[in-house]
Amino acid sequence: MKLVRYGARGAEKPGLVDAEGQVRDLSAHVGDISGATLGDAELARLAAIDPATLPVVQVDRYGPCVGAIGKFLCIGLNYSDHAAETGATVPTEPVIFTKATSAITGPNDHVEIPKGSTKTDWEVELGIVIGKEARYVEEADALDHIAGYCVINDVSERAFQLERQGTWDKGKGCDTFGPIGPWLVTRDEVADPTALAMWLEVNGHRYQDGSTATMVYKPAFLVSYVSQFMSLQPGDVISTGTPPGVGMGQKPPVFLKAGDVMELGIEGLGQQRQTVTAYRA
Amino acid sequence: MKLVRYGARGAEKPGLVDAEGQVRDLSAHVGDISGATLGDAELARLAAIDPATLPVVQVDRYGPCVGAIGKFLCIGLNYSDHAAETGATVPTEPVIFTKATSAITGPNDHVEIPKGSTKTDWEVELGIVIGKEARYVEEADALDHIAGYCVINDVSERAFQLERQGTWDKGKGCDTFGPIGPWLVTRDEVADPTALAMWLEVNGHRYQDGSTATMVYKPAFLVSYVSQFMSLQPGDVISTGTPPGVGMGQKPPVFLKAGDVMELGIEGLGQQRQTVTAYRA
Repeated sequence: MKLVRYGARGAEKPGLVDAEGQVRDLSAHVGDISGATLGDAELARLAAIDPATLPVVQVDRYGPCVGAIGKFLCIGLNYSDHAAETGATVPTEPVIFTKATSAITGPNDHVEIPKGSTKTDWEVELGIVIGKEARYVEEADALDHIAGYCVINDVSERAFQLERQGTWDKGKGCDTFGPIGPWLVTRDEVADPTALAMWLEVNGHRYQDGSTATMVYKPAFLVSYVSQFMSLQPGDVISTGTPPGVGMGQKPPVFLKAGDVMELGIEGLGQQRQTVTAYRA
Repeated sequence: MKLVRYGARGAEKPGLVDAEGQVRDLSAHVGDISGATLGDAELARLAAIDPATLPVVQVDRYGPCVGAIGKFLCIGLNYSDHAAETGATVPTEPVIFTKATSAITGPNDHVEIPKGSTKTDWEVELGIVIGKEARYVEEADALDHIAGYCVINDVSERAFQLERQGTWDKGKGCDTFGPIGPWLVTRDEVADPTALAMWLEVNGHRYQDGSTATMVYKPAFLVSYVSQFMSLQPGDVISTGTPPGVGMGQKPPVFLKAGDVMELGIEGLGQQRQTVTAYRA
């Protein structure tokens, strides 16, 4: 299934995308696409519904494809060629950092340049959505804890992240820095999450053109790994790192400015499009 | 007011502590103590209730004093003498890191030593609870965005935090590592949050015996500062750093083991007591 949330910010309704690409309203069957919806039994219940029985809706806005996300975790430097372009080396075990859940936004909403920013940058990433609590999970069992996958733009302010003391979180959680969606594609429809083409363009120029095949630490390993440090709850999201081609890695570096348009996508998981704006005063 | 949440985990009810120290049930007047309850108007409405009209309740468990916390942010190395004991220097601007919201627990619940942990440590901290959205707030206006204050034990696994690659978040967000409460004391009852005695004992030995007077970056500055990087929503919590006396700073270092008992408190904000246990398999 391709699950979506659509409608006004904070009042999104649940839906699914049918075989013809039409969005259909699921709100008669489920309150939201969020933690309580993402277990295998609930997903099976939704999958048993004949889409033809659901009202077709015209979508004017997609929300983030998961609601009420509790933790928005990220893995840093998880593509060897991206690590190289930023002057870093691949860590000997995954780097975990956190994006503020208040940064989460819809896949086609605008992205704001924060006040004082000079280095706002992009990162197309494969998102893992947790479907079942994971706590000290073995790698062999980890995929059972994944409800599905989605596209994430891990928007990042490099000066805040790297030049302002302390952890990266300062440059990762700015408002609007977490577009998620459009679709949560359930894991049964993603034959191999480690072989998906992924790309990102700014104003039509393709900066990122990679594949999840070059991820260092793969989804099953990551879910197991993170679950050694903290339990993962249904609806939690792990963004798994970005391939080469971020703005910071260009020679000279390129950063976002108001009016720029980012377009990005991952094979089978849909596309995002964000217009960059100045911050809201 | 001293606001509390009491009852079984995940089913806490709202209450207040009356002048005699009795807890009274607020659930006829408000659904929960959480973001929607913490604005000035809502707090004024609750303050206008005569506590004598509320049922007295016998509390067998306190929950975290704020429910549905969206962001659990922390300030690192914010006491100059604590920075010194850990071999670090006070940063030139605040260090922000993130505790997983899944770590949040009641003030007297047990604290678990995570699987594989050898260096689980304690940190008594003053918690700031946000009452009104803060976004690019000036320091002069920042206190208006604070609903109140509470006690937090920023339990930390030092090997996970410092020896396992990347940001500190790995050692800060383990399950049960965030006891919050017992009381949310509204800001009108905290005459000076920068002059509060604070202490922490393990098995009756006083390891931390400090005061918020030695904080480097004060609450108003911190709310303003954090709001430059991400908006703060009602119910978000900022833990503001710890004074000297953590286990890592002892010579030789002392870390927690199953059966230990931590007791901690801050002047006017109440006390916590946690028994340390092995992790839940």
